[in-house]
Amino acid sequence: MPGRPCTLIAYYVIYSEPDDELDYRLLHLDRSLTELIEEHKPDSVAVERVFSQHNTQTVIGTAQASGVAVLAGARAGLGVTTYTPSEVKAAVTGSGTAGKAQVTAMVTRLLKLDAPPKPADAADALALAICHVWRGGTRARIAAAAASRRTRS
Amino acid sequence: MPGRPCTLIAYYVIYSEPDDELDYRLLHLDRSLTELIEEHKPDSVAVERVFSQHNTQTVIGTAQASGVAVLAGARAGLGVTTYTPSEVKAAVTGSGTAGKAQVTAMVTRLLKLDAPPKPADAADALALAICHVWRGGTRARIAAAAASRRTRS
Repeated sequence: MPGRPCTLIAYYVIYSEPDDELDYRLLHLDRSLTELIEEHKPDSVAVERVFSQHNTQTVIGTAQASGVAVLAGARAGLGVTTYTPSEVKAAVTGSGTAGKAQVTAMVTRLLKLDAPPKPADAADALALAICHVWRGGTRARIAAAAASRRTRS
Repeated sequence: MPGRPCTLIAYYVIYSEPDDELDYRLLHLDRSLTELIEEHKPDSVAVERVFSQHNTQTVIGTAQASGVAVLAGARAGLGVTTYTPSEVKAAVTGSGTAGKAQVTAMVTRLLKLDAPPKPADAADALALAICHVWRGGTRARIAAAAASRRTRS
């Protein structure tokens, strides 16, 4: 439900070298995501939906990476939901056109962090996670787990 | 080398339903590609480079799928090379702006097929494979295998 308190468990930023070959960069991303999923055992995965209003050549690289992220969740058997940047901004700030500083400020406040998450891109990822929780993205799985526990007891 | 005769071993077209969820579609693509790689044990993988001159929303889906294709090759330990559509057309027809019919006609002739490959998209994939062989994409690996055989004998 919107407004439900969220607690930060961990966040990571996966880097790759722009000069490296595409196959190497995507493999690195896939392995890193797979390791993080194994380590933290999330209930579900949220990925930002890629839009084309930006520089189109950048968008292609971003879309390839997002495809790998969606696949990493699917291969782990997790539900994967995508949200547009406007949906995420609207969820955490009330405005779909909020600026980066406003999103960062709200993420820092909502997660009760001592300082804004670094690097700045991490704030976008955390806003996406908060949006996902509030939009009920993890509800189906939690309900299923609860039902399963009831059945077993 | 350009002009080197090529023999068709197999071709497939992997379909997914546009109405299906993105995670399901990418998972299906990944599994199908992984099975085909295991079955045919290719020396290398060639993927068309995605360009942005088309409809931008279509390009994003194409880029996500191409990211999964590049990753499938990389995860199998294969070299992955990308070529632009113009490079492929120029390789098989001599013109980077050749039409689809001309590419299909040359693929049918070069592979000595009785009829054009079906569906039409398959001809593009086969043109890409011919371009890859002629541009020497498989050479490094074949040379490495030959060297390895020489070392062992």
